[in-house]
Amino acid sequence: MSVGDVGERGLIDFFFTLIDRFPREVLPFGDDAVGVPFGNDALIVKTDMLVGSTDVPPGMSYWHAGRKAAVMNVSDVVAKGAKPIGAVFSLGFPPRTTMDQAGDLVRGLNSGCREYGLYYLGGDTSECSDLVVSGAVFGLVGRNNVVSRKGANPGDVVAVTGPFGLTAMGFKILLENLSADPRTKELALRTVYEPQARMKEGIVLSERNLASSSIDSSDGLAWSLYELSKMSGVGFIIDSIPAPKEVRTFAESHGLNYLDLALYGGEEFELVITVPSAKWNRAVDSVKVVGGTLYPIGIVTEEKYIVLRLPNQAEKMIEPKGYEHFRK
Amino acid sequence: MSVGDVGERGLIDFFFTLIDRFPREVLPFGDDAVGVPFGNDALIVKTDMLVGSTDVPPGMSYWHAGRKAAVMNVSDVVAKGAKPIGAVFSLGFPPRTTMDQAGDLVRGLNSGCREYGLYYLGGDTSECSDLVVSGAVFGLVGRNNVVSRKGANPGDVVAVTGPFGLTAMGFKILLENLSADPRTKELALRTVYEPQARMKEGIVLSERNLASSSIDSSDGLAWSLYELSKMSGVGFIIDSIPAPKEVRTFAESHGLNYLDLALYGGEEFELVITVPSAKWNRAVDSVKVVGGTLYPIGIVTEEKYIVLRLPNQAEKMIEPKGYEHFRK
Repeated sequence: MSVGDVGERGLIDFFFTLIDRFPREVLPFGDDAVGVPFGNDALIVKTDMLVGSTDVPPGMSYWHAGRKAAVMNVSDVVAKGAKPIGAVFSLGFPPRTTMDQAGDLVRGLNSGCREYGLYYLGGDTSECSDLVVSGAVFGLVGRNNVVSRKGANPGDVVAVTGPFGLTAMGFKILLENLSADPRTKELALRTVYEPQARMKEGIVLSERNLASSSIDSSDGLAWSLYELSKMSGVGFIIDSIPAPKEVRTFAESHGLNYLDLALYGGEEFELVITVPSAKWNRAVDSVKVVGGTLYPIGIVTEEKYIVLRLPNQAEKMIEPKGYEHFRK
Repeated sequence: MSVGDVGERGLIDFFFTLIDRFPREVLPFGDDAVGVPFGNDALIVKTDMLVGSTDVPPGMSYWHAGRKAAVMNVSDVVAKGAKPIGAVFSLGFPPRTTMDQAGDLVRGLNSGCREYGLYYLGGDTSECSDLVVSGAVFGLVGRNNVVSRKGANPGDVVAVTGPFGLTAMGFKILLENLSADPRTKELALRTVYEPQARMKEGIVLSERNLASSSIDSSDGLAWSLYELSKMSGVGFIIDSIPAPKEVRTFAESHGLNYLDLALYGGEEFELVITVPSAKWNRAVDSVKVVGGTLYPIGIVTEEKYIVLRLPNQAEKMIEPKGYEHFRK
């Protein structure tokens, strides 16, 4: 049996059984990042690898690829409530890569870091048949302020920090050549080429202890809900999916369901969180103060199903699927 | 111009000009690892990438490749005097990799970590055309105990923690099919397949503030001396090269110079350090107490040359060359 048969998530579950556990871990294995105690703080570390042939969509510049490699690591660190401090990047270049391309990649990495206040501290350079950018970002958060995927309780509000569906639309345009009006196309491609990590939102929620659980939605909204559900031992009733008008119109004109674009896309880097209902108003206000928006999308339930219950639509299950390496 | 024309070190120098500098860095850019202040301590972080096609010699198992990927990151952290705490690994697998192979790699990573007291905390799994293991290891050391590549002073003793030449001999046997008697071959291959990081030595030297500078010799002894020289602004007179008898015999029987094997090999992971002469005896004793050996190999000079002055041999310069990615 090959890793291609098993898929990324099966692999991770398998690896989990082979590794000795750190006795003082502050985040469970399989969370967005790892964490170790540092006095009253926790050091949160994330490593994520960008591979040219699978993670760099057509038309993305080296600068944008570098920036994205930084953002995707930052996103997981801030999803745990930590303030990112520094990053190291191991770079693998095919030897034919030009100096201009390599320089643009590094400039993009630097820009992606500086945008979120952290520094690109150093790293390593190797030869590789594929372009590989493997980052490790670390940050700090108070020991009692770490926000895990585990912690959602029945009755909590489920919320997201932004709309869903734009990146899936962008991938349909880029990879399947679907048409879109120029403004919609530009909007979609910008979300693909210039993803944003929700740092201010993640940090303010953790500082004020407002979120009971949190995950970065890089594998898609449906998959993120599934992970929160699995690790918290709860279910969800989702009664609203914040998809922009452009996504609905685009879906309609191509005979697609906008819900599929919003639920099963990925690479959105929004936070999917749960908030105890008593803290909901404070959470909304706190996120607004830092310039963000919290969209409530449902409620946490004891029953471990993830149900989509939209107005005037038949109730259905949200499937646990999303972007997965080794699965095409 | 491509990265293949410029070579790894030219690339690193170029990248250096493109990156905003962290204002509170505790290690200069280009040192073995990066460091940031954490209260009275410094957090030392190293990332190093192992690539299947260039870093895994013929006959090396997945388990050994995993272990090596852990050891090469640990080596740089302990060279700075830090005690490693945890590691994250981003893994890139060709889809045809079997589950047995992937599992062995992960078991090797875990073993490599546990051997040095740290934990494999988590990571990421991707699809890649080449096998890629990108590690990030972090550790702690007192702010005033960090040992940089910068700091060697004229008059200091230059020393190494082990002999040189065995890995170069191993590569000659593996890659060029040179013959060796079975015992010599086994010795050489063991150093290639099972490299050791000099953790106890690095930590005791830093705890007692005995080393004025330190570098991990993974790029070879000559290159390590060149880097120490460049960053400390000094030179060296090297009057002894600790090469095992087997290396001398092997070199002689193949018409090679054993000094080339010892100086220009690489992947040795010994520490190359400088020690103020007043602290030399304490350094030797301290390293002995933890089970290691310090071999004095020369002296630091004001003149920025790296001179090889062996008994009964003509003096010559040690060339700044060693293993370098993108340069074959």
